[in-house]
Amino acid sequence: MTGDSALPQPEAAPFTERTPRVVAARKLTRRAEREKTGRFLAEGANAVEAALEDGGKVYELFVTERAAAQHGRLLVAARDAGVPVSPITDRAADGLSETVTPQGIVAVCAHVDRPQETVLKPGAKLVVVLVDVADPGNAGTVIRVADAAGADAVVLAGDSVDPHNGKCVRAAAGSLFHPAITRIRDVDAALKACSAAGLRTFGAHGYADTELDQVTFDEPTAWVFGNEAHGLRHDVLESVDLAVKIPMYGRAESLNLATAAAICVYTNAMASRAAR
Amino acid sequence: MTGDSALPQPEAAPFTERTPRVVAARKLTRRAEREKTGRFLAEGANAVEAALEDGGKVYELFVTERAAAQHGRLLVAARDAGVPVSPITDRAADGLSETVTPQGIVAVCAHVDRPQETVLKPGAKLVVVLVDVADPGNAGTVIRVADAAGADAVVLAGDSVDPHNGKCVRAAAGSLFHPAITRIRDVDAALKACSAAGLRTFGAHGYADTELDQVTFDEPTAWVFGNEAHGLRHDVLESVDLAVKIPMYGRAESLNLATAAAICVYTNAMASRAAR
Repeated sequence: MTGDSALPQPEAAPFTERTPRVVAARKLTRRAEREKTGRFLAEGANAVEAALEDGGKVYELFVTERAAAQHGRLLVAARDAGVPVSPITDRAADGLSETVTPQGIVAVCAHVDRPQETVLKPGAKLVVVLVDVADPGNAGTVIRVADAAGADAVVLAGDSVDPHNGKCVRAAAGSLFHPAITRIRDVDAALKACSAAGLRTFGAHGYADTELDQVTFDEPTAWVFGNEAHGLRHDVLESVDLAVKIPMYGRAESLNLATAAAICVYTNAMASRAAR
Repeated sequence: MTGDSALPQPEAAPFTERTPRVVAARKLTRRAEREKTGRFLAEGANAVEAALEDGGKVYELFVTERAAAQHGRLLVAARDAGVPVSPITDRAADGLSETVTPQGIVAVCAHVDRPQETVLKPGAKLVVVLVDVADPGNAGTVIRVADAAGADAVVLAGDSVDPHNGKCVRAAAGSLFHPAITRIRDVDAALKACSAAGLRTFGAHGYADTELDQVTFDEPTAWVFGNEAHGLRHDVLESVDLAVKIPMYGRAESLNLATAAAICVYTNAMASRAAR
């Protein structure tokens, strides 16, 4: 259906929001359809470039006329990779976007998550585990931070948001295709898998006794972060090897999830590299 | 107009979106009205609590019935401080909110920013300067990070967003009332004021030669961050004492403003305390 024979010529009329392939792609803005098909929408030049370059499987690329003019290099890369490129109208692009400012360039990709046993294995040095994280923008921002810090993997555990959600893809700015990503529904199983892979588990918690600047980062680590509003569940805090608190030097009571994760993961990454 | 004689009794009918005092408050969602009156809306329990406790000047507090039931302690604190408390309808609360999920508790406050000479002065150890930062959520998140890291001040320089914007207030989660805040339109003057106060200026930049983990934090520092999309302006980069790059250990090209600021400011805060 999306084979090369269907590749439209540049002068072809753009697909509208009623063209069957656009209608099918639009359904991927719903989680149920994503789970059913194993496909999702990667919107924006960063995400499309990462999907094409970094081993993501891309089924099809939709572009508006304006985006095609801006991102000629990406269209060439897509065609070179045998990915069908279809022009779409601005209105069709709006329908494929889960963000307030549609980018006009959207790829239909295969899910990026992998089986946990291929992701959590001995040799991993830095892993980020999100437990019950609800906001897709937060999840995407943390995936970007994990990538920047050189993390081997990101685990979405418990009731966490689908990483293929459009707002998550956008916030990850291409990084969704970089660290290995796995989803583990059972949080206890996720922690046990980290331990089995030789990772110490550190749970970030505002009332922990140990402060971040007291921690020695000389072993592989899995950082565990909880829900935006409620933090780490009590049973998870009981299960991690060490609960760690970011010191509060001023009068703020806490930090938001993404900034807290950035501080913990980068402090770890910089210190463990310095120690080598 | 908002004196104690006007204090409505709890059993009074709630103000609606057409009540003149609510109409007047609603105008404060516009920057021009905020600049004209020197007032702004602090929405949410965190912000209201910080305004009441931390020396903010509060003219009036509006609460819905539901929020009043949740935040009884805050209402007592307001009345003890001589702040008129007025019940409002849910619809009136919607009109006073700049966020998608109105909190039902909104204070009319005096602007928090102060003259630069009272904020940037010898003795300051850690200052954050935002240059041309456009997104109020980012500005608020960075103010919260600066507070948590014990920063003395936050400078909104150049074309930066108004810190009294509702989305900034919300993202700051009360911290807007903690570090000293000043606005300096002229970026060069802002940097010179930092230097005159004995602060070294560090500009965060993705292509700097010096990486964050190579920096020694043994002197008072002002961290300078640029616009979300464009980073620090060339002339600003030329003017800072040192340009600093967050090391990228993975394949991400960059971090977003708030996470980058969190990493730089906290790395500095933890290192300079360890060195004492």
